[in-house]
Amino acid sequence: MPGGHSQTLRPFLWRAEKLYGDTEIVSRTHEGRTRHTYSEYADRTAQLANALDEYGIDRGDRIATFCWNHTRHFETYFGVPNTGAQLHTINPLLPDEHIQYIVEDAADEIIFVDASLAPKLAGAAEGAAEFDDVDFVSMGSDEIDALDATPYEEFIAGHSTDYDWPDLDGDQPAGLCYTSGTTGKPKGVEYTQSMLWSHTMASQTPQGIPMEDSDVVMPVVPMFHVNAWGMPFTATAAGAKHVYPGPSPDPADLAALIEEEGVTVSAGVPTVWLGLQEYVTEGNDVDLSTLDTVIVGGAAAPQSLIEWYDDRGVEVLHAWGMTELSPIGTVSHLTNDLRDADYETQVDKRSKQGLVVPGLEFEVIDEDGEEIPWDGEAFGELRIRGPWVTQEYFARPDASEEGFEDGWLKTGDVVTVDEDGYLQLVDRTKDVIKSGGEWISSVELENAIMAYDGVSEATVVGVPHERWQERPVAFVVAADSVDRDALVEEIEAGLREEYPKWWVPDAVEFIDEVPKTATGKFSKKDLRERYADQSLVEGSVPEDDAPEGE
Amino acid sequence: MPGGHSQTLRPFLWRAEKLYGDTEIVSRTHEGRTRHTYSEYADRTAQLANALDEYGIDRGDRIATFCWNHTRHFETYFGVPNTGAQLHTINPLLPDEHIQYIVEDAADEIIFVDASLAPKLAGAAEGAAEFDDVDFVSMGSDEIDALDATPYEEFIAGHSTDYDWPDLDGDQPAGLCYTSGTTGKPKGVEYTQSMLWSHTMASQTPQGIPMEDSDVVMPVVPMFHVNAWGMPFTATAAGAKHVYPGPSPDPADLAALIEEEGVTVSAGVPTVWLGLQEYVTEGNDVDLSTLDTVIVGGAAAPQSLIEWYDDRGVEVLHAWGMTELSPIGTVSHLTNDLRDADYETQVDKRSKQGLVVPGLEFEVIDEDGEEIPWDGEAFGELRIRGPWVTQEYFARPDASEEGFEDGWLKTGDVVTVDEDGYLQLVDRTKDVIKSGGEWISSVELENAIMAYDGVSEATVVGVPHERWQERPVAFVVAADSVDRDALVEEIEAGLREEYPKWWVPDAVEFIDEVPKTATGKFSKKDLRERYADQSLVEGSVPEDDAPEGE
Repeated sequence: MPGGHSQTLRPFLWRAEKLYGDTEIVSRTHEGRTRHTYSEYADRTAQLANALDEYGIDRGDRIATFCWNHTRHFETYFGVPNTGAQLHTINPLLPDEHIQYIVEDAADEIIFVDASLAPKLAGAAEGAAEFDDVDFVSMGSDEIDALDATPYEEFIAGHSTDYDWPDLDGDQPAGLCYTSGTTGKPKGVEYTQSMLWSHTMASQTPQGIPMEDSDVVMPVVPMFHVNAWGMPFTATAAGAKHVYPGPSPDPADLAALIEEEGVTVSAGVPTVWLGLQEYVTEGNDVDLSTLDTVIVGGAAAPQSLIEWYDDRGVEVLHAWGMTELSPIGTVSHLTNDLRDADYETQVDKRSKQGLVVPGLEFEVIDEDGEEIPWDGEAFGELRIRGPWVTQEYFARPDASEEGFEDGWLKTGDVVTVDEDGYLQLVDRTKDVIKSGGEWISSVELENAIMAYDGVSEATVVGVPHERWQERPVAFVVAADSVDRDALVEEIEAGLREEYPKWWVPDAVEFIDEVPKTATGKFSKKDLRERYADQSLVEGSVPEDDAPEGE
Repeated sequence: MPGGHSQTLRPFLWRAEKLYGDTEIVSRTHEGRTRHTYSEYADRTAQLANALDEYGIDRGDRIATFCWNHTRHFETYFGVPNTGAQLHTINPLLPDEHIQYIVEDAADEIIFVDASLAPKLAGAAEGAAEFDDVDFVSMGSDEIDALDATPYEEFIAGHSTDYDWPDLDGDQPAGLCYTSGTTGKPKGVEYTQSMLWSHTMASQTPQGIPMEDSDVVMPVVPMFHVNAWGMPFTATAAGAKHVYPGPSPDPADLAALIEEEGVTVSAGVPTVWLGLQEYVTEGNDVDLSTLDTVIVGGAAAPQSLIEWYDDRGVEVLHAWGMTELSPIGTVSHLTNDLRDADYETQVDKRSKQGLVVPGLEFEVIDEDGEEIPWDGEAFGELRIRGPWVTQEYFARPDASEEGFEDGWLKTGDVVTVDEDGYLQLVDRTKDVIKSGGEWISSVELENAIMAYDGVSEATVVGVPHERWQERPVAFVVAADSVDRDALVEEIEAGLREEYPKWWVPDAVEFIDEVPKTATGKFSKKDLRERYADQSLVEGSVPEDDAPEGE
């Protein structure tokens, strides 16, 4: 056989067990913390694998989880894929109809479910034919009557702690995660063994989010969300200590875990770190001295957040990724040249989405299909490819046809790239406003408008236009007492100074609130539909009659 | 297509060019140093690729180099494999008949050759039919008449600096290197694109030999020897500055490069670092302040070497690898637990071959086919497998049959593993002495004997024995003035105290010198042959009549 042995997750756990048998995996539960060593963990994953065999799980079968971050969930991370089965992590925050859809789409055999999430799952499963062939295992110690769920400890009890882990092919599907887009059905992304291996190794480079055996790693990002950014795998490859924060951790819970377990690396969305910051500034004395790095992703990291943590000796490392990328694509390390720059410049760079990780390639394509210059101004759609970037959606030739081109993933993200190579997200392709052959960033206009006193919220959408294809319209939620006419004048005058004339919205409309999606993002689609039949600006046309887009 | 985009070298250079276009690649020549940026380097590799296309090189064709470490050699590292051709680095120190054999075996189309090595290559090529279809390119600026070699600059001149690098499969052979074993024909090891990609990523983990864009990387290990341990690829993935020391660098050359280029990471065999140490202790004032790490491999790192560099703030990182492993297998980082140990313990661990890099698996099999305990005492043959470990020898089914089993590479190295997981090489399987169903380390006995005053050199070999299968015999080169009988008594008495009784050699023979191989290692094969027909010890039998080995 040409080439080396196949790339699988097995060697990572084998190494951790052999070299770091005594290192701990800690998990917060409502009843206190559980502690297992890698040795015990390895035994328990073997028991789980034997239990799955006895249940009748075959290679390629899909096993789902519906869980927060805890040790048992982590046991499925190696215990399921290392047998050749596929781990399908379900986002329990999805609406019921999405859950029903993906359980049927994935043909899950078993769902491992947390007691606290059982009512949600039972609600989705009740009377739903999609669940007819599914069995349930309860991650708590008790049965869950509504789902007829066997307790996990009972499921694995009595099974051997030895398992003859098979030699899998790198192409063997190991994971499955659905993207929760704002429109249409969720799309499944399969992670092969080789993709997870590659992502783990790329994460471990100095250009990624590297870990050592001295690290104590706490993923706050949910394990149902792109494998908690791959951290459980990366931490295992490093032989690091794991800390799982359990169900719905609040800032006090996180602070206690950081202090008492000596957490060195953690990761989560900005809200998590803003919450901890607020908790401290409210007067709670939290010892952050062990904490070296917090990885922030999922939304832009505010500069003030970076600065606050800097003052406390904690590096905020801004990263960007997607479900399709397993997920890491860029990390905002400072280049060597910038290590001598002034602090303001550094924070500016670090608040961008960052530098591409070695092993990936990207291009940014403008309206005309040309690559944009790297000047931090021009923008276009980001396309990316690499060994841990999927090349298709699970069982969705339609979505795959649309989402990929010539081997590139079309991310749907509109970005700039500056002269140092830092990517910055400025919009989504579906939200960017195409006017007169140029693109206008709706996000940039929104941020500019939201900076005005008297504006509570604002969003900018493109409305179809007979001459310009689209024109921007701003929707503003004003503070109660504000003089609305004066505010509009002020905004328009300000934008005219800051941006090219054709960026200035043709209208500013006041609304009571910006409609939101299930995950709390502005739902521009909703606004577009609501105003589709109205002529908001001169020359605008109803959406159905709009000129063809490019 | 399931899984991610194929794993190739292309993204590493693409990233370095885009992010670090101004970072330098420095090369020492007899006429001074040359300097290129990654931008220029990328242009020149494109020119090389275009020149190869014009020459008529197709995908899978093999291009050889016969060169020291310099920028033009580095240009072939990406310029050749990224087109889909295969780079075959020839060791110019091999005997002529081996060079003839491997040039024919590899069917090389072109050999890029250094002017200083041209006489050696011309000697091997003269009248040798193996070279009939080979063309030569001179890495100097002049033609080489003896080989009718075109100068490199002429070869690439006038070609476009753009090249449409193809989308290669991960299984595409990218490199080829022959092992120079002590017995039999050299065996070729092919490196696929995916193996080189995997090795680069594994090198970049904290458990490997990671590099950053702030590093200045000087590979002293020859580029004809397993891709200079992969460092040119790793440094490029990191966007680091490269420094190539050129032909036959002496300690003064290395010292000047370290000081003047600010080298932070270097790598070579212990002799290189002992040479630099001697140069400094002789009174030459060398500023080593930029140097963070020297990677030592190819032979065991003496503890005194580790300590001398420690005193100067330079970490000696002992690594072990093989041609078959691309080459890195283990690196002797301290585990977190050992970071609190006393210095002596730390140096003891660091002088071992080290901890396995994540992504690999190994097992150590004793005489009875059982895995040895990890106690630092028991030993057996090391078997290893992983994505950057080859699974066969190039066009050698016979050698592949012998060298691999159940997906494992049988390394031929006999090792112990201690309770912390550190591997230590104690012998080669062909040299270990099998006596009465147990193994005796010939290397350990040699080291013990060489420690006696009056012993200049010593080697221990097993001679066939009718009852015990083999028994050890020591061959000693004594200092001139020594009382030989007293020395033998002293050695035997000492070994009896230190080792089990059955380890003590049945005879100590005096010889004038230990026969050596072409690469300077003790040739035990030679000694065995020389004494094959003599009954050196009671019960010994001529080799041909020896009992069957296990």
